[in-house]
Amino acid sequence: MQAQQKIHEWLEANRHRGIRFLQQLVQEGSTRGNESSAQAVIIEKCRKLGLVLDIWEIGKDHLIEHPAFCSDRKDFAGNPNVVAILKGTGGGKSLILNGHIDVVPEGDRNDWEYDPFSGRIENGKLYGRGSTDMKGGTVSLLLAMEAIISLRIKLRGNVIFQSVIEEESGGAGTLAAVLRGYTADGAIIPEPTNMKLFPKQQGSMWYRITVKGRSAHGGTRYEGVNAIEKAMVVISKLQELEKTRNNKITDPLYSQVPIPIPINIGKINSGEWPSSVPDIAVIEGRMGVAPNEEMKSAEQELEVCLKEAAESDSWLKKNPPKVEWFGGRWLPGDLDENHPLMSILAKSFEAVKGKQPIVEASPWGTDGGILSKTGNTPVVVFGPGVTKAAHDVNEYIIIQEVFETAEIIALAIMEWCGTN
Amino acid sequence: MQAQQKIHEWLEANRHRGIRFLQQLVQEGSTRGNESSAQAVIIEKCRKLGLVLDIWEIGKDHLIEHPAFCSDRKDFAGNPNVVAILKGTGGGKSLILNGHIDVVPEGDRNDWEYDPFSGRIENGKLYGRGSTDMKGGTVSLLLAMEAIISLRIKLRGNVIFQSVIEEESGGAGTLAAVLRGYTADGAIIPEPTNMKLFPKQQGSMWYRITVKGRSAHGGTRYEGVNAIEKAMVVISKLQELEKTRNNKITDPLYSQVPIPIPINIGKINSGEWPSSVPDIAVIEGRMGVAPNEEMKSAEQELEVCLKEAAESDSWLKKNPPKVEWFGGRWLPGDLDENHPLMSILAKSFEAVKGKQPIVEASPWGTDGGILSKTGNTPVVVFGPGVTKAAHDVNEYIIIQEVFETAEIIALAIMEWCGTN
Repeated sequence: MQAQQKIHEWLEANRHRGIRFLQQLVQEGSTRGNESSAQAVIIEKCRKLGLVLDIWEIGKDHLIEHPAFCSDRKDFAGNPNVVAILKGTGGGKSLILNGHIDVVPEGDRNDWEYDPFSGRIENGKLYGRGSTDMKGGTVSLLLAMEAIISLRIKLRGNVIFQSVIEEESGGAGTLAAVLRGYTADGAIIPEPTNMKLFPKQQGSMWYRITVKGRSAHGGTRYEGVNAIEKAMVVISKLQELEKTRNNKITDPLYSQVPIPIPINIGKINSGEWPSSVPDIAVIEGRMGVAPNEEMKSAEQELEVCLKEAAESDSWLKKNPPKVEWFGGRWLPGDLDENHPLMSILAKSFEAVKGKQPIVEASPWGTDGGILSKTGNTPVVVFGPGVTKAAHDVNEYIIIQEVFETAEIIALAIMEWCGTN
Repeated sequence: MQAQQKIHEWLEANRHRGIRFLQQLVQEGSTRGNESSAQAVIIEKCRKLGLVLDIWEIGKDHLIEHPAFCSDRKDFAGNPNVVAILKGTGGGKSLILNGHIDVVPEGDRNDWEYDPFSGRIENGKLYGRGSTDMKGGTVSLLLAMEAIISLRIKLRGNVIFQSVIEEESGGAGTLAAVLRGYTADGAIIPEPTNMKLFPKQQGSMWYRITVKGRSAHGGTRYEGVNAIEKAMVVISKLQELEKTRNNKITDPLYSQVPIPIPINIGKINSGEWPSSVPDIAVIEGRMGVAPNEEMKSAEQELEVCLKEAAESDSWLKKNPPKVEWFGGRWLPGDLDENHPLMSILAKSFEAVKGKQPIVEASPWGTDGGILSKTGNTPVVVFGPGVTKAAHDVNEYIIIQEVFETAEIIALAIMEWCGTN
């Protein structure tokens, strides 16, 4: 029997256990700062698989001084990074399999049909915050490794599984793993690509814009300047900037993406008192960065846009909005579409799905930028689940895709690392 | 020597003490829930004046069940209302002198030139949160009473001085005073009218509008619906409604007021995460109500406006914004311009200032609505300070106006209550 057939059958035979494992991971809600119990589930699994474990609290190894470090936290105690290595016999290429364990907040629980941390299964879908982004992908990685181990397939190169924290907030977990020495000949990150191959990843960074007004009694509001109204001027300009920037994107990999590098307006806070004219408004959001763009150049475009907004309004001219670049920051990634890791993944995909994969550029940043730029490791992002479901209410993953991805990745591991 | 001359000279002679008293009141910052130490200053003064004191924690007397009760608090312990009565000899008309002790929050302290609770004096102005709204006016009342008492002028009617809490949040303090039995033949409220006479007061009420979006990852924001963008649609509609409503105001008393019944956008909060599309936005503000308008009818106009906003947008059509009427609620007041209290105040004004007062309708609500509607007490709002400075940074009051107002009110008291 061919290796692929064996892996396929192993995955079929272990389907129930695999689903239960994913369910357990989702049930251990791992919003930022609360990742430890989900990491404990990962650690237990890796221990059972006999992997060489490295569990550490990040924040050392000059992490915080590194130029690519980006976090509003400096203390990460209590929620470790996990690396688990399947040692090869030697002579093969090494492969990092990277998943993040942190999930974004669940939002308004009343909007969820089921408890956001239930892991409930309906019609072949498993529901819950983090199911798609990206515990489903992480489970695909571990199933692929477990299949190889269980079938006693001997690899030549090392497989370095990583379950990192802080991806949603700037990638400090993956950066810490790089600084700890974990680099490789290639890497796969199974973020929810809807099983498309993403050799390029959009970078992104967070901005905070502060808009001043002048307070007054709401009953004579014409004597003040409403910071919310002025923030609306700024938001309109950001919407224009988004259009201009996206019109410049010509990479055919983005041809199916409505807005390749979005500028998201993520938060606004203004005002303390219904009867007062608010004197300050703070807008926070995320700016997409093209794969081949410098972070600095994107920053400058937004800064110029704010200058233009200020020029368009007599109040803003005297009280120009200010921008800070804070918190999350993800470097873009830009792998050649013909890189061998791409070819191997495409071949494995075809073997499992009977058709060629769709190749696109990711509409969002991942830890791939840090792995490739600071770790010099070629990265392909490829995983189960749809981006649409990530960060949304009623987040879910189609269970079948988790297993198909596991099979494809198992084949790619064997091909990339080599077998004895 | 004429009574006016004596009062004028007494106020001149006691100018320094009066200023020091105002300074002390401003220094006892009395934002909501923290009124007790400023009330202690008031109580001490009233005790020295030999007034009959009534100090009580509001919330009893069926206050909370009263239809005009409007507050998001139900427990007011620790910050009492103060009423202090100068008993007349009988046979005269009674007069309520009403000031509120609560002040709005100071906002961003960095925007203040001086500490917002310093009471600092520069060029004849006294600075600080509450100086204009309305501790300056309260000091005018107490100076007027102190002058009359010190000069041993015997009044026939009672003067009922009130220092109430909660004016900025819906008037529960004044309502509690009414329910305790404090009504009178007339009332003066020295809110900052810039020494104009306001026989009519605008009512107002707070609204909270909730706008739904649909969350998504910011990198594929086109798959979500941004609640902030939808909130901007709603805000634009509120701006249109404000225009329509104000175009209908024909009362000549409002001819000098740019926006007689404003709709203030006081707060907006939306979003939890810069990289997510926000799924909910909450707008809070204050809607002005015309003197002769029913509160209910104003509510309905805003509700219809939201329906129109929903009709204008396919997402909002399916997810209509919702409004709640919460917190502050001030009944409008509508006194005849030829009421005797108006004539007496106008005459006193002319005696002191040598010119006729300006008569306008107030661009904001006061406790006058409660006093007149639930207490059946005719109210004129007249006081030192400009509305523009109220609720603003660097709030100040022109000290000279405090003393001029004290003199005018002292004359009006004698005329209204009668002297022996």
